Amino acid sequence: MQKVHIIKIGGNILDNPERLQRFLIDFAQLPVPKLLVHGGGKIASTIGLQLGIEPQYVEGRRLTDAETLRVVTMVYAGLINKNVVAQLQALGCNAIGLTGADANTIPATKRPVKTIDYGFVGDVAGPETINAAAIQALLQAGLTPVFAPLTHDGQGTLLNTNADTIASVLATALAPYYEVKLVYCFEKKGVLADAEDDDSVIQRIDQDKYKMLKQDGVVTQGMIPKLDNAFAALQQGVSAVLIGEADALASLATDEAFSGTTLQLQHG
Amino acid sequence: MQKVHIIKIGGNILDNPERLQRFLIDFAQLPVPKLLVHGGGKIASTIGLQLGIEPQYVEGRRLTDAETLRVVTMVYAGLINKNVVAQLQALGCNAIGLTGADANTIPATKRPVKTIDYGFVGDVAGPETINAAAIQALLQAGLTPVFAPLTHDGQGTLLNTNADTIASVLATALAPYYEVKLVYCFEKKGVLADAEDDDSVIQRIDQDKYKMLKQDGVVTQGMIPKLDNAFAALQQGVSAVLIGEADALASLATDEAFSGTTLQLQHG
Repeated sequence: MQKVHIIKIGGNILDNPERLQRFLIDFAQLPVPKLLVHGGGKIASTIGLQLGIEPQYVEGRRLTDAETLRVVTMVYAGLINKNVVAQLQALGCNAIGLTGADANTIPATKRPVKTIDYGFVGDVAGPETINAAAIQALLQAGLTPVFAPLTHDGQGTLLNTNADTIASVLATALAPYYEVKLVYCFEKKGVLADAEDDDSVIQRIDQDKYKMLKQDGVVTQGMIPKLDNAFAALQQGVSAVLIGEADALASLATDEAFSGTTLQLQHG
Repeated sequence: MQKVHIIKIGGNILDNPERLQRFLIDFAQLPVPKLLVHGGGKIASTIGLQLGIEPQYVEGRRLTDAETLRVVTMVYAGLINKNVVAQLQALGCNAIGLTGADANTIPATKRPVKTIDYGFVGDVAGPETINAAAIQALLQAGLTPVFAPLTHDGQGTLLNTNADTIASVLATALAPYYEVKLVYCFEKKGVLADAEDDDSVIQRIDQDKYKMLKQDGVVTQGMIPKLDNAFAALQQGVSAVLIGEADALASLATDEAFSGTTLQLQHG
């Protein structure tokens, strides 16, 4: 089975042009096929404020009203996505920038209003709704898809969607066809045995070890949903989930060991 | 040879949501393979002004400074392009939104500074620089490319590029592989025999007739560069150039005659 890397980067890289450039150089070195999923970053909030749009939050979560959707469409799918594509092209990586609306790659549903109306936020039902054939066609044409964190409802409306979710659902959707490594670039070096010690990276975590780490309270609250999602992806056929600093990405193009945390169902 | 339609729309359609929707319904009805190229419209200027960017002109032409490039990247490649894609998907057209940086489809060169520095404006050398293979791969995958008027310099920088030029260079680049009809959607019903009479559309113009129309002063100054470009495209293998109102597009999906002006090298 052919290998594919799916890499997710967030605001901590996107907001820093030098870190972004360093990351893109490493990403360009990775063998094809590969995909990149990027998050948002602070630029959208900055531009939103310049346009007079006050961010609105409910329970710490940002709402995507119609005005905010316009801003994130401009910033995520335009400014960030196309500049990343142009920079990758300069590095010899044949990138193609996409949202989930493009080629109907990622259909989603507007999050139903229960107690909170999140606005134009999209939930992806699961890997079976992803248009894997379209993504395979792009990969087979030698292209490297670069996804902005937007999906669509199939009725003409774009939807703001969490980039971690997009990366994970793309990974599970491609798992029947490729040996998928899903890599989350993170602000820490990996999952830490001691939250106070940045060098206490746990190199490998399988399901049994994950249970122990949770029981012992080593894995902190913020990490639990991330790792739960990672193991859910592994159970759906993704071969490994890697979590580490963007700088650790270079090792994936070589035979070097990955310096972050590697999650697998069984210790391999 | 398989037929392909390349349709160009400008601000007069993009700035009016109802006209745009009507156009997209007609476009979605056209048989595949097809491509759409869209221009900018007033939204970029409006958003630029909201962001405090004063448009700068030299000799009536807008300059693209670094700030303006950011705005047009957001608006053309993000806001306009992705909303058009999402709307086409809702109409059953499998659209994929692109700039010339995506899949390296349209490499360009930053316009050299002679007397005027236009800023980040891209000139396309010619059809031979277009990545026709990538576009064909997308068409063969059943996708409908939707181009925003941006190209790139291959060094990591996006460039603002005239949408008429993009449509024409795409048409000539695809002419060796397809029977290409290039359609410019226009604010008038076609090329007019009497500029004061909107219904005096000249239905067919070949090279000889074009010479006569120029000699007789029937073709007005503003139209000459447009028609010169159209005949240049025909000389490079494009089978027909159609100029007319967006509402005339519907006829292309049927056997009805096109109600605008059809340009061909010889009266066919």
